[in-house]
Amino acid sequence: MTVAVVVSLDGQRGDGQRPTLDRLNALVSADLHRVNELIVQRMDSPVALIPQLAGHIVAAGGKRLRPMLTLIAARLCGYDGKRHIGLATCVEFIHTATLLHDDVIDGSELRRGLKTANSVWGNKASVLVGDFLFARAFKLMVEDGSLEVLSILSDASAFIAEGEVQQMITANDTTTSESAYLEVIRAKTATLFAAACRIGAVIADRPEVEEEALQSYGLNLGIAFQLVDDMLDYSAAQATLGKSIGDDFREGKITLPVVLAYRRGKEEERRFWRRTVQDLEQREGDLERAIELMQRHDALADAVARARHYGAIARDALGIFPDSEAKSALLDVIDFSIDRAY
Amino acid sequence: MTVAVVVSLDGQRGDGQRPTLDRLNALVSADLHRVNELIVQRMDSPVALIPQLAGHIVAAGGKRLRPMLTLIAARLCGYDGKRHIGLATCVEFIHTATLLHDDVIDGSELRRGLKTANSVWGNKASVLVGDFLFARAFKLMVEDGSLEVLSILSDASAFIAEGEVQQMITANDTTTSESAYLEVIRAKTATLFAAACRIGAVIADRPEVEEEALQSYGLNLGIAFQLVDDMLDYSAAQATLGKSIGDDFREGKITLPVVLAYRRGKEEERRFWRRTVQDLEQREGDLERAIELMQRHDALADAVARARHYGAIARDALGIFPDSEAKSALLDVIDFSIDRAY
Repeated sequence: MTVAVVVSLDGQRGDGQRPTLDRLNALVSADLHRVNELIVQRMDSPVALIPQLAGHIVAAGGKRLRPMLTLIAARLCGYDGKRHIGLATCVEFIHTATLLHDDVIDGSELRRGLKTANSVWGNKASVLVGDFLFARAFKLMVEDGSLEVLSILSDASAFIAEGEVQQMITANDTTTSESAYLEVIRAKTATLFAAACRIGAVIADRPEVEEEALQSYGLNLGIAFQLVDDMLDYSAAQATLGKSIGDDFREGKITLPVVLAYRRGKEEERRFWRRTVQDLEQREGDLERAIELMQRHDALADAVARARHYGAIARDALGIFPDSEAKSALLDVIDFSIDRAY
Repeated sequence: MTVAVVVSLDGQRGDGQRPTLDRLNALVSADLHRVNELIVQRMDSPVALIPQLAGHIVAAGGKRLRPMLTLIAARLCGYDGKRHIGLATCVEFIHTATLLHDDVIDGSELRRGLKTANSVWGNKASVLVGDFLFARAFKLMVEDGSLEVLSILSDASAFIAEGEVQQMITANDTTTSESAYLEVIRAKTATLFAAACRIGAVIADRPEVEEEALQSYGLNLGIAFQLVDDMLDYSAAQATLGKSIGDDFREGKITLPVVLAYRRGKEEERRFWRRTVQDLEQREGDLERAIELMQRHDALADAVARARHYGAIARDALGIFPDSEAKSALLDVIDFSIDRAY
């Protein structure tokens, strides 16, 4: 696994700089502007609450990573039409619908430091506006008119929903295995990354082998991304940067750091995990103790090591494409996703 | 409006019998058997909770009226292929997904006398399995492969979601107008009836005028059906049959009987409605008082009169089709939907 790191840091950059998404942002900025316009246009409705609530979550949704993947994958494949705009919007709508329902399921009150839609407008509105966005995503796909794209995104949607149910079932279960955890993040996160990338090759009418390469890149990137995301929720470095940590712990979410710390811990430590994340009986100082136990057992470092493994696979998947600015931007996303761990 | 009644009761049957769905059931029973098999097959998942919960709601979902409409509409149009089976299943999945989310939104504990899925498995599971069923419906449509059908059902899905949000906003608002109420039931109920019927003509490759006729039949039947459904929740006749009444009242749902009774009532009566369905401060005897006020103002009878109006339009929409067993079965559905009011 160390090999992947060396390739990642020295082979591609070797400049000692922290990886950024600057190259990606520059390449897709004009397209992303059109996507943002289409998002606003297609979330509109005579029912005023819909654009209000959807606007809140879309604005809070962050960096538009998934639609940017569709845009840059299309660019990588030499696509010069306009379909990537609608499909990138569609991908963002599916993601946003999922976030809305996730926040209801988790009872979350904050997302990226902003109040969640459910805490402002209530769970009912979040469920229904999520349904609305999913239906609008579906309309966008139908308007695109490709049965192949429809098939990719409908398969992805069903698989995401299965992953969400599986995650709910394993919630608060400290005996969850690493492979069960991986199945959940593969379904609920990586599937949409994979579909977002693959449709770039589909609309460019590229051969199956390129579709598969982008699918594999997206799937493995998505797993790496979620692994690091889950690790960051316990990161002391994040805490010193003023970012919120401990959300997953408070909700009793079983992520890899918990899985590893539980499995590597003594019986007394396992009792701690059962009390805090299984029974949700939490006291002052428990989060600090959780982080301390994770560090003692290398659970955080090893979660990142696992992420590097998937990042390396994602990198190799792109090997069949000749060098280009778009390819470099896709490789940047891997480095960025993993190196934000530090 | 009385004309429609006369046509409905005397012109078609004139035998003094209560209308039934026997003819419809006989005509589609073989197809419906295949639909039921496909429902079981396509709700399956390695995540065991999904078929458990989905099976509960599909079993409790009642008489499969919507998929039967797709089957009989296809028959009316002379369709002799197999696509109607998958699409009828798809229609039932969309309906079931909507029911699951509805019961969460309304906090309902009973549906047709059975415990709702949310009361057995919790709101979270109902939201996520609803998402799963919607995604599976979408997959079934994509497998069918017709962009025209996809367009009809994706438009319908977005419109249904809009109607659900609108209904949530107007919940507990006693000043809701009759037209606002009608807009809600048109979106949340009638749209799927309309789509279910229309696709029968689409797969049979019939001219646009027949598609529109079936769309109009479905839309107006759906409005009539929901009007009567909402009326029955206050029906003393239902109560004497041992069927549960008063669910909408307890949840403060604003349906036409409430709209009419409120608008026709004196200030003291309006205070009653505000206390009970707006503020949800309900006491022993309030449901009986609500029914008494509705009867005093002919609110229940007039809800049925409104339903007859839409039923008459649905009947006329079928006028362009020559007489057939399938057409008679579709007309039976109108009579049945309205006459169950008595």
